[in-house]
Amino acid sequence: MNQQATSGRVGVFCVGMGAVASTMIAGVELARRAGRVPVGSLSELGAVPGEAAERRWADVLPLAPLDALVFGGVDLIETDAAGAARTAGVLDAADLAATADFLATVKAGRGLHDPGYVRLLPAVRARPETGKRAQLGAMVREYRAFFAGAGCARGVVLLTLSTEAWRDPGELHATPEAFLAAVDRDDPAVSPSQLYAWAALEAGYPVVNCTPNPVLDAPAIVTFAERRGLPIAGSDLKSGQTYMKTIVGAALGKRLLGVHGWFSTNILGNRDGLVLDEPQNFRAKEITKGGVLDDLLDAKRHPELYAGMEHQVHIHYYPPKGDNKEAWDAIQLFGWLGYGMELKINFQCRDSILAAPLVLDLARFIDLAAQKGAAGVQSWLGNYFKNPAPRPGEIPTNDVHVQLAALERQLLAWR
Amino acid sequence: MNQQATSGRVGVFCVGMGAVASTMIAGVELARRAGRVPVGSLSELGAVPGEAAERRWADVLPLAPLDALVFGGVDLIETDAAGAARTAGVLDAADLAATADFLATVKAGRGLHDPGYVRLLPAVRARPETGKRAQLGAMVREYRAFFAGAGCARGVVLLTLSTEAWRDPGELHATPEAFLAAVDRDDPAVSPSQLYAWAALEAGYPVVNCTPNPVLDAPAIVTFAERRGLPIAGSDLKSGQTYMKTIVGAALGKRLLGVHGWFSTNILGNRDGLVLDEPQNFRAKEITKGGVLDDLLDAKRHPELYAGMEHQVHIHYYPPKGDNKEAWDAIQLFGWLGYGMELKINFQCRDSILAAPLVLDLARFIDLAAQKGAAGVQSWLGNYFKNPAPRPGEIPTNDVHVQLAALERQLLAWR
Amino acid sequence: MNQQATSGRVGVFCVGMGAVASTMIAGVELARRAGRVPVGSLSELGAVPGEAAERRWADVLPLAPLDALVFGGVDLIETDAAGAARTAGVLDAADLAATADFLATVKAGRGLHDPGYVRLLPAVRARPETGKRAQLGAMVREYRAFFAGAGCARGVVLLTLSTEAWRDPGELHATPEAFLAAVDRDDPAVSPSQLYAWAALEAGYPVVNCTPNPVLDAPAIVTFAERRGLPIAGSDLKSGQTYMKTIVGAALGKRLLGVHGWFSTNILGNRDGLVLDEPQNFRAKEITKGGVLDDLLDAKRHPELYAGMEHQVHIHYYPPKGDNKEAWDAIQLFGWLGYGMELKINFQCRDSILAAPLVLDLARFIDLAAQKGAAGVQSWLGNYFKNPAPRPGEIPTNDVHVQLAALERQLLAWR
Amino acid sequence: MNQQATSGRVGVFCVGMGAVASTMIAGVELARRAGRVPVGSLSELGAVPGEAAERRWADVLPLAPLDALVFGGVDLIETDAAGAARTAGVLDAADLAATADFLATVKAGRGLHDPGYVRLLPAVRARPETGKRAQLGAMVREYRAFFAGAGCARGVVLLTLSTEAWRDPGELHATPEAFLAAVDRDDPAVSPSQLYAWAALEAGYPVVNCTPNPVLDAPAIVTFAERRGLPIAGSDLKSGQTYMKTIVGAALGKRLLGVHGWFSTNILGNRDGLVLDEPQNFRAKEITKGGVLDDLLDAKRHPELYAGMEHQVHIHYYPPKGDNKEAWDAIQLFGWLGYGMELKINFQCRDSILAAPLVLDLARFIDLAAQKGAAGVQSWLGNYFKNPAPRPGEIPTNDVHVQLAALERQLLAWR
Repeated sequence: MNQQATSGRVGVFCVGMGAVASTMIAGVELARRAGRVPVGSLSELGAVPGEAAERRWADVLPLAPLDALVFGGVDLIETDAAGAARTAGVLDAADLAATADFLATVKAGRGLHDPGYVRLLPAVRARPETGKRAQLGAMVREYRAFFAGAGCARGVVLLTLSTEAWRDPGELHATPEAFLAAVDRDDPAVSPSQLYAWAALEAGYPVVNCTPNPVLDAPAIVTFAERRGLPIAGSDLKSGQTYMKTIVGAALGKRLLGVHGWFSTNILGNRDGLVLDEPQNFRAKEITKGGVLDDLLDAKRHPELYAGMEHQVHIHYYPPKGDNKEAWDAIQLFGWLGYGMELKINFQCRDSILAAPLVLDLARFIDLAAQKGAAGVQSWLGNYFKNPAPRPGEIPTNDVHVQLAALERQLLAWR
Repeated sequence: MNQQATSGRVGVFCVGMGAVASTMIAGVELARRAGRVPVGSLSELGAVPGEAAERRWADVLPLAPLDALVFGGVDLIETDAAGAARTAGVLDAADLAATADFLATVKAGRGLHDPGYVRLLPAVRARPETGKRAQLGAMVREYRAFFAGAGCARGVVLLTLSTEAWRDPGELHATPEAFLAAVDRDDPAVSPSQLYAWAALEAGYPVVNCTPNPVLDAPAIVTFAERRGLPIAGSDLKSGQTYMKTIVGAALGKRLLGVHGWFSTNILGNRDGLVLDEPQNFRAKEITKGGVLDDLLDAKRHPELYAGMEHQVHIHYYPPKGDNKEAWDAIQLFGWLGYGMELKINFQCRDSILAAPLVLDLARFIDLAAQKGAAGVQSWLGNYFKNPAPRPGEIPTNDVHVQLAALERQLLAWR
Repeated sequence: MNQQATSGRVGVFCVGMGAVASTMIAGVELARRAGRVPVGSLSELGAVPGEAAERRWADVLPLAPLDALVFGGVDLIETDAAGAARTAGVLDAADLAATADFLATVKAGRGLHDPGYVRLLPAVRARPETGKRAQLGAMVREYRAFFAGAGCARGVVLLTLSTEAWRDPGELHATPEAFLAAVDRDDPAVSPSQLYAWAALEAGYPVVNCTPNPVLDAPAIVTFAERRGLPIAGSDLKSGQTYMKTIVGAALGKRLLGVHGWFSTNILGNRDGLVLDEPQNFRAKEITKGGVLDDLLDAKRHPELYAGMEHQVHIHYYPPKGDNKEAWDAIQLFGWLGYGMELKINFQCRDSILAAPLVLDLARFIDLAAQKGAAGVQSWLGNYFKNPAPRPGEIPTNDVHVQLAALERQLLAWR
Repeated sequence: MNQQATSGRVGVFCVGMGAVASTMIAGVELARRAGRVPVGSLSELGAVPGEAAERRWADVLPLAPLDALVFGGVDLIETDAAGAARTAGVLDAADLAATADFLATVKAGRGLHDPGYVRLLPAVRARPETGKRAQLGAMVREYRAFFAGAGCARGVVLLTLSTEAWRDPGELHATPEAFLAAVDRDDPAVSPSQLYAWAALEAGYPVVNCTPNPVLDAPAIVTFAERRGLPIAGSDLKSGQTYMKTIVGAALGKRLLGVHGWFSTNILGNRDGLVLDEPQNFRAKEITKGGVLDDLLDAKRHPELYAGMEHQVHIHYYPPKGDNKEAWDAIQLFGWLGYGMELKINFQCRDSILAAPLVLDLARFIDLAAQKGAAGVQSWLGNYFKNPAPRPGEIPTNDVHVQLAALERQLLAWR
């Protein structure tokens, strides 16, 4: 079924080859070589609902098979996925040894560096071009060279880079024309993430923004995707604490329990954490993390339950944790007659272990959307994101169950 | 709207006037007298989905208004709801003072006591009848006397008594005829809960089983409800730890994350906890609490994720907590490549504060079902229960979101 | 025994009549009126070690009896202890009602306000004097007027005000002469706390610094206390998280277990928390809180266990908590062969409930020291402080058990 | 210094070669071969107090050097320490590989099996002797054969076996004569642990009881040790939750804070946990764990703070945890005016990693005591035990700081 559609190699280009990208790539290879279970991947393990016999999505949709995937990318520090995996410290010694040969073949080109957006990283592998127009052109060539060189029939671009210093999108992000004019005048408000996304679309590839950086928040880029007939999705993977938060928040909201406050703190010691130690970079995260409760604990509809609710999110760079992020949530809720209760959640998770299967899913689903000719924002992928971009006229939700229903509906429609 | 349907008093008869019943009654009275918000009550605060303007369920359905509710019951210890509230220690001094006069008017008759089912309670107010047939007849008269005496147009019976020692339903629970024969021969396998439920149906009132005691597990009783044309629902309120567990369990299952083990411990110091200190009584709870993860973390569909999962539930009677139950869950999960993570949830909740609005909702919804002529198991109320009884042919789910969707569908159908 | 020494009233002057002071005063009054147990007070409940019969310290030392204590103070917002208690929200309704009449008699004069030190408080009751010399003189008169007006035989001054913006002590804090010169020239480096302390000593009263503000860190003030023959002690009450931290830190250190990191976060919603939301004010707290592990987990003596240990302390103003501070500590430790373990401590405490008995103890013990003619730093009170000031030549410790041994030795010596 | 005393090999005989013994042995070997730090070992890392230069205990006392230690033992399942280490699953793959050759040389003889004392273990390597007198004689020969065969100048016997079903010591445990008579008549009240200990003393070796089994609780055995001029110490290693409990309990007691309740639950999945799943075996643990708060939170001295305190300890066999024991403590405390607070401690520890250095210390310290000619109970080692056996007339304490002071005093006396 769908033999032709899925024939040929599918390139997955990771803009930022850090912990998430290298963990995803290593896991795909271990699934291919050693039959390791791709735990957490809906596109691999998810069952088609309403079927008599057990069938998985890959049985009924032209999802790129794991064997068809080829990987590439750019990075400011690492030269290949093997180095990235070693730096990340996510994989244990045995898994690292078992994949090192393959990971070494996944090369990373040089990336775009703008110290106005990321200051704390030692960007030793920045591209030589300095003007934004030149950088844009260089990235278009970089993408094309990779996909062509790898003999790919199709390809996708994943933004898996670090969190950049936050800048509110402005006039220049309103239209493609304004954006290109800003590129031409080297406007500092054009971020590397936006250049990466634009170049991908220009080169003809769909884009997924796994970061909190404002990309889909720029109407210019969304419009450009529509004009190019390419799908785009984002933003900011909803992997650990925020996933749990939307789950528990929805549960409290649906029980009509009141909430006085929700305090969330995170400690993590990976490169992601280091970058977020800079307040301007944390700002981006604060925005995507801060809004997730608004529709679940709706103060407009239920001021008697949620008006004045205090919601705080803190992230601390804490080296002893390494990639093993840890979150602590303290929730002050109230029930019948206003009597107070406390809920505490302590999640000792692993950032990249949670993110890797989501990234794999997104690569395959955005590729599926491209195959189906879907253009513009793919809001049916909202369950993957902290800040799910809506299509025009849609009101985005953070309710995972509503999001998953939308995803199932779309997949069934394409069956 | 629906004026006639809701006119007249609606009696709510609580079989067991303990912490939950008295807290619910006090809260209803505080809402009536003082406009206190009935936090946690879907029947009061829940919004009708898909409506342009904000409308609540009570605006579109003939739900009994709070002002129409009158309360009564039986208890083995307390003589009225005021005493029950004082013993329970749930309400603070101000709320107790503000409702004491009203609660003192809510009298409790004598209850059925069988030391083979509850051993640790000092049942000082047991009815004098000793044979089960005589007890059945006495309860029929008790119900009728209360509802008539209170001038009720309609009425419902809520089983809010203590957890009984567990006995698997047997032959005698298969048909109404077998059950009555067992009553006649004073078979010890006929429990007080079953007598209470049967008598209510015989007297012509719908029944909600808020306890883990096997009532709807007895086909005899369900068949009898159908024959009598009366609705029935249960079992075991899903209020605190188990509600959180089904929420988080569903979230892990939907992300296809694996689980090695789930350890749950509970400490509570109320009358409920004292009774559960007896292993045979705990057994009932263990059964309703133990199964809630089975369909959410489905080992048949996903043996690679859930086969061999260890699930333990412990409850300890711990007087320092009083009614303030506390739960601790430790979950050992795994993600991509099998890498392990830990999730800990500490819920300092209040048993009766969480349960009271659910009991209110159930009273009004079962009354609604009775008004609509619905007979037999009301499985659309499944979201309220740990062990939701299905209708014939239905596969029950513990997924709150599926359960809530069913509830909304039923309510919209009756609009 | 010691009848004369303890005869007469003993004035306790609280510089800052907030949550801690009002809670302490209310509790003393409830102990006097209603026999409530002064839980947490060593000076009341502590037993004399090594005695055959059970005897408490008050039986063998001329500690001021509770009945002899009279209270006064200054505050920038409240006019009396009743208002302070209401604002603080620590006492429940019954205790507030039972003490309101008495608390209303405990008046607060106007305080010294310097917006360079505390910015976020609405200081509506600042003294009119503007120059520091004038302020110093005014406070000397304020103290004398209170103690004389209340007919006190003896008196003590407790600094219980808010945390000020941090400034490292400098040249002007080196000697009494330099300090007075700085006062005369209105040097902004002279803080309100330092003026309060100096004025107390000038007026002839011993001083306890319950705050993290640098007072005993100024040699000028310590020297002045010595010259005046008056005892002084501080700094920063060790009440909740830090007390637990020194306890657990000492326990790990004595077992020679290694520590990779210690992450501490605090949420609190009282006036104290509001002030600490200003980074410059938090700085003071950070200093006193940050150093407490240094001698307990000694990286110099045991670099193999503690070198490079990450220690972070965060405090967040979080209104839903009110005075009920909550702390979460996450400790990454390691044992035999370097294998890692995790320890999490969640302390839901009450700031003022923990601090009140310590303040009572300190008032009585510094008064005892004054009776005994002890001058200068009273380092035997170190167990009460996060940043215990040592006497010249002493190396301060944060080991509670060593500190308590020193306290017992001193008290036994004065028996 | 002390050259002669420490010359020659010192045999360490482990009765029960399970997780603790094999982890200790592997760690000693890794310290010898690879310079790994013996974290947690006071006898290796502890500094001599009051010394000008940094000196460790091994510098001033004739403690057996690591290089002098030779290991042996018996076990009911494992044939050598390599198998024990593999079964235990404590060591990671690298450490297991690095020590496997050495561990394979540490052979375990057959052990004494009595199904009346341990039921759940598959005791495949029980000794053939059936009568208790024959078993006693066999163990005397086993000890002598090992120490002689290994060319040991000195030796110690450590009881590191599983927890046995509890039996209160009785008449037969009162005197050596009564005990031997009971052995002769094969009295079932004579436990394997008691036989192991007696045989060791008879063979001339000091004994440490690392288990909760009643050995030092039998006056017969203590008297026999005194008659044989041999030191003996116990019982039950205080490694994880209980160590933290005595620390925190002492801290609350010294602050005179009240405690309403202390709830402790433990989950662990190792062989130890399996054995404790049997109620009779858990009983032994319950006794040693249950009493540790009694002198720290002293209800006799402070009934106003501790009378009626609820103290519960639960242990659950929970396979997902393996050797990584996890404990959760919930403490309900109260302070000034009786206001309540909550303290929660979650310790994710590793049983054998915490115990291994304690076992090493005990082996060396009991050997030191033997060198010094100390006979009978060595109560100065109390800090190592949950249930520290006192010398006649001593009142045992669970205060770690008092215990450590006693240990330091004894070591300094022997310097």
